[in-house]
Amino acid sequence: MINKLVANIKKTNAPVVVGLDPMLSYIPGAILDRAVKKQGETLEAAGAAVWEYNKGIIDATCDLIPAVKPQIAMYEQFGIPGLMAFQKTVEYCQEKGLVVIGDVKRGDIGSTSAAYANGHLGSVTIGNTKCRGFNEDFITVNPYFGIDGVKPFVDVCREEKKGIFLLVKTSNPSSGEFQDQKIDGKPLYEIVGEHVAKWGEECMGDEYSYVGAVVGATYPEMGRVLRKIMPKTYILVPGYGAQGGTAADLKPYFNEDGLGAIVNSSRGIICAYKQEKYAKFGEDGYADASRQAVIDMIEDIRTAL
Amino acid sequence: MINKLVANIKKTNAPVVVGLDPMLSYIPGAILDRAVKKQGETLEAAGAAVWEYNKGIIDATCDLIPAVKPQIAMYEQFGIPGLMAFQKTVEYCQEKGLVVIGDVKRGDIGSTSAAYANGHLGSVTIGNTKCRGFNEDFITVNPYFGIDGVKPFVDVCREEKKGIFLLVKTSNPSSGEFQDQKIDGKPLYEIVGEHVAKWGEECMGDEYSYVGAVVGATYPEMGRVLRKIMPKTYILVPGYGAQGGTAADLKPYFNEDGLGAIVNSSRGIICAYKQEKYAKFGEDGYADASRQAVIDMIEDIRTAL
Repeated sequence: MINKLVANIKKTNAPVVVGLDPMLSYIPGAILDRAVKKQGETLEAAGAAVWEYNKGIIDATCDLIPAVKPQIAMYEQFGIPGLMAFQKTVEYCQEKGLVVIGDVKRGDIGSTSAAYANGHLGSVTIGNTKCRGFNEDFITVNPYFGIDGVKPFVDVCREEKKGIFLLVKTSNPSSGEFQDQKIDGKPLYEIVGEHVAKWGEECMGDEYSYVGAVVGATYPEMGRVLRKIMPKTYILVPGYGAQGGTAADLKPYFNEDGLGAIVNSSRGIICAYKQEKYAKFGEDGYADASRQAVIDMIEDIRTAL
Repeated sequence: MINKLVANIKKTNAPVVVGLDPMLSYIPGAILDRAVKKQGETLEAAGAAVWEYNKGIIDATCDLIPAVKPQIAMYEQFGIPGLMAFQKTVEYCQEKGLVVIGDVKRGDIGSTSAAYANGHLGSVTIGNTKCRGFNEDFITVNPYFGIDGVKPFVDVCREEKKGIFLLVKTSNPSSGEFQDQKIDGKPLYEIVGEHVAKWGEECMGDEYSYVGAVVGATYPEMGRVLRKIMPKTYILVPGYGAQGGTAADLKPYFNEDGLGAIVNSSRGIICAYKQEKYAKFGEDGYADASRQAVIDMIEDIRTAL
């Protein structure tokens, strides 16, 4: 799947991923009203509205981008109906040829991580039948449990030719509270980065590893250091746009081959119609506004690189 | 909800929680066969079997215990049908008067943590209606993002009078890889523990705080230190039984009032019928075997304390 991700990035010449993170407040009123009219003020209506909203954005942007990253929390907040919208979104994006990165940030003790890995990347065997749960192509993983909490994900990746992005340095303001703490003079995120590089060597695609890393756009100096520590690692970079990261910040995350990083934008794309810059599209044109925002983001990043 | 947890523990005189972590291999063949006969070799059949299995254990043990802890990964592995079984389990346990600790180990940047908090502890507002997703009483939370990833959970707890258990020192063998790293001479788990105590002060129930901690039974010396650092914190203790923690290891986790800790056992209870000790119950008597295992666990812990 890392080979497919790299191929998609080369084909689109766009190292970007659209974060499908639907908040109710992002969804145009007409879509939500329609859903509520049909199913009442229920979680089912929210799930239906989320799905319709997503489908519009996917249809309007899928020819421009290599991948999407749905954040499962934004679906989980609506319980089962929300997760049904998540699943439909994953399937629909895959039908469109997009690589799907499930932003689930799971992680636990070994046997529990194995269950998450099976549910999101692999399969469970019921009788003689292999059944798949959410079936993303990549997922994000939290490393707090140490290696035996990560290994089950790596094992399933190897078997399924799928991938993970391990949290190394997150984009939020307080990420440093634990992740920057120095251990024998070396910050924790560097130590996690060294692990990622080591685990990644055992799971190589053609050019890059199945084991990727998350490093926030908001910390470019750390990005520079981590790029060197993890040369064969794809870096998923959140934090561009709404969280404050700029295109100029992104250069250190890429290798000289122009590959090695993929930049996420969520709000900046899916909620573009609410920005003054794209106001002319109106609520009804929210998907076209998202398309224009993707074009602008790609241009912004190409210029900076 | 911390007050209800403490009241339930006092009523049952049993500081234990049953981990409802169903693996397919734990479920008696007859239950699974029945489900497959009805729904084929599908995730739906797995979900139905998990629910029937859980209901048997809950019915057989609910008068003895204060709380249950379903591990959501074991349901998520079966996709949507698995999560429907999770939801039914949560609701049924609450009807039986049990406190439900959703072992979800979520955690992300602020806005995303807020969505998880709403989905698992709080509500979302659709039109004018408050709708609840999974609606557990407590959940477990991963602190890797630092304070702004934890705060949204604490905010919802305060509003809803619900609670969290923050991962401080997990029970698995490699937990030390990151959690034990020393920062200015102090291990990371102690620093997280100090945060828990501080956050907890702002969220007090009658005797204990809504903000609890997870500390594995497999590290009793660290349990002793953390007990002192977090005097008003309830400690959720995994790792007893199948993972190697013994009753003698548990004393340091408790306060002098005999409260302050609740010990989890999963496999040791729900899969008791597979142990030689409880083999006489047979597969059909799996629920009675679980009841006997709960009685024995309570006795074991009472003796050690």
